Amino acid sequence: MSVLVVGSVAVDTIETPFGKVESVLGGSAVYFSLAASLFSRVRLVGVVGEDFPPEYRQLLEGRPIDLDGLTVAHGRTFRWEGVYRGQMNEAETRQVQLNVFEDFRPVVPDAYKDSEFVFLANASPHTQLYVRRQVPAARFVMADTMNLWIKMERPALIELLRNVDALILNDAEARQLSGDDNLLRAARWVCEQGPGCCVIKKAEHGALLMGPEGVFVLPGFPTENVIDPTGAGDSFAGGLMGYAAASGDPTPKVLRKALAYGTVMAAFAIEDFATVGLCGISRRHIEQRLKEFIRATHLT
Amino acid sequence: MSVLVVGSVAVDTIETPFGKVESVLGGSAVYFSLAASLFSRVRLVGVVGEDFPPEYRQLLEGRPIDLDGLTVAHGRTFRWEGVYRGQMNEAETRQVQLNVFEDFRPVVPDAYKDSEFVFLANASPHTQLYVRRQVPAARFVMADTMNLWIKMERPALIELLRNVDALILNDAEARQLSGDDNLLRAARWVCEQGPGCCVIKKAEHGALLMGPEGVFVLPGFPTENVIDPTGAGDSFAGGLMGYAAASGDPTPKVLRKALAYGTVMAAFAIEDFATVGLCGISRRHIEQRLKEFIRATHLT
Repeated sequence: MSVLVVGSVAVDTIETPFGKVESVLGGSAVYFSLAASLFSRVRLVGVVGEDFPPEYRQLLEGRPIDLDGLTVAHGRTFRWEGVYRGQMNEAETRQVQLNVFEDFRPVVPDAYKDSEFVFLANASPHTQLYVRRQVPAARFVMADTMNLWIKMERPALIELLRNVDALILNDAEARQLSGDDNLLRAARWVCEQGPGCCVIKKAEHGALLMGPEGVFVLPGFPTENVIDPTGAGDSFAGGLMGYAAASGDPTPKVLRKALAYGTVMAAFAIEDFATVGLCGISRRHIEQRLKEFIRATHLT
Repeated sequence: MSVLVVGSVAVDTIETPFGKVESVLGGSAVYFSLAASLFSRVRLVGVVGEDFPPEYRQLLEGRPIDLDGLTVAHGRTFRWEGVYRGQMNEAETRQVQLNVFEDFRPVVPDAYKDSEFVFLANASPHTQLYVRRQVPAARFVMADTMNLWIKMERPALIELLRNVDALILNDAEARQLSGDDNLLRAARWVCEQGPGCCVIKKAEHGALLMGPEGVFVLPGFPTENVIDPTGAGDSFAGGLMGYAAASGDPTPKVLRKALAYGTVMAAFAIEDFATVGLCGISRRHIEQRLKEFIRATHLT
């Protein structure tokens, strides 16, 4: 079963203590698609400018990623420049040029409208609701969000929560949204607003899944090799949703395993610059990593 | 097999967002002993003043905790007063009166000298080395430490590391000691200084064990009910060392399971004020909690 993603496609410049890459492929929909496409077919809805490098399009086309929903608009592609320092917990944004992404009103192509698994990458909740209404038959819709929308667009975000099946956000955002410092209560609060499911990402500390069967927690993938955290969250969501879509049914058991696949995909993403860590891997590498992860985190 | 602990016995006053308790039983050796005594016999070496309430002594005596090593010195018992706010990540110390603890030169009674499992609770590394030399036949010695000693007594701490089998410390301390932001590399660095084993405590995010068989990570026990974090680290160490001592052999497999028991004991400790959460529980409650923990953190 394929998974639909609506989000940003970007050209990034990233600096970390380990080096710098300029004008490389990035964006939430890209990281998500690269990760998810290792599990199931992906349908991408996004926008780029006329300057979008053809080799970046080819990179995506070389995978099971459908680009019929990728609009080319008049103008330049969304550009982001960021730097990570020290423990690399958070990016410091040096520059953002929204460009063609600023006026993006995502249109889901007719051929995508039967999508059962949908990921609404971080965007204004108004935009996310606009997309949600275009896929009324979807079975499992997960939305991402961020501090800006929690602060500035709270009513629309609460409305969105009544119309999706899962919210994914980081720990600080979960505390901000719920007003509760305890992450379990925060996740439960989110679930009570409408979605039956909430995923809280805790960066190196792993992730928490709250659902109808209670809480499930996994540590982060233990790695000594953190090069560039860009896209970790979207790669995590890609692994999670890609596996869930491939399984066909988002049962609690499937979602638990999906959380582990998300963890593994995030680890691949951060072990090299930008999308490099997600390229050149196969499902065999993923299964091997999952085994390593279970060995390092499960009592036998 | 019994476990020997050398550390503080204190009278604490604690305030958290959930209330305040005054002049209650506390101290690293106390939390450790209460947790460890649910798994194996404990031998406690510490010091109290003449003001130490008899009912606190009785509380300890009511468990398999040997108090022959608890000296009563002329003066008052060590007193600590602290407050936790917000996410309760760190205590803000309001007052410390070292009192009789200030000149404490721990003497291991002859009857304890055959102890095979030893926990050197947080103290100056000089004091810890002094104790270490009194139990030359010990098989598994674990030491705790803190930021103060890492900064002020680094050479003695490095010397200590050459003479123990495991170091336990929190994430910030591990980064400070090793000079490495990555916790896996930090733990490996510690192991290379002498101990074959390093345990890094990450508070609500769980714990990491580095040993000859590589890394093992567990998340924290997912709980909505955090009342007072005092003693969580020592209760964790108590569960860990108590289980290891009971098993008789600190193999990698035993230490992994011991990490889980430590996690469970820390959860009991923080769910009520001071030592209350560690009292009134039995091994049956612990096994039940361990099952809950595995259900909430392990893929099946």
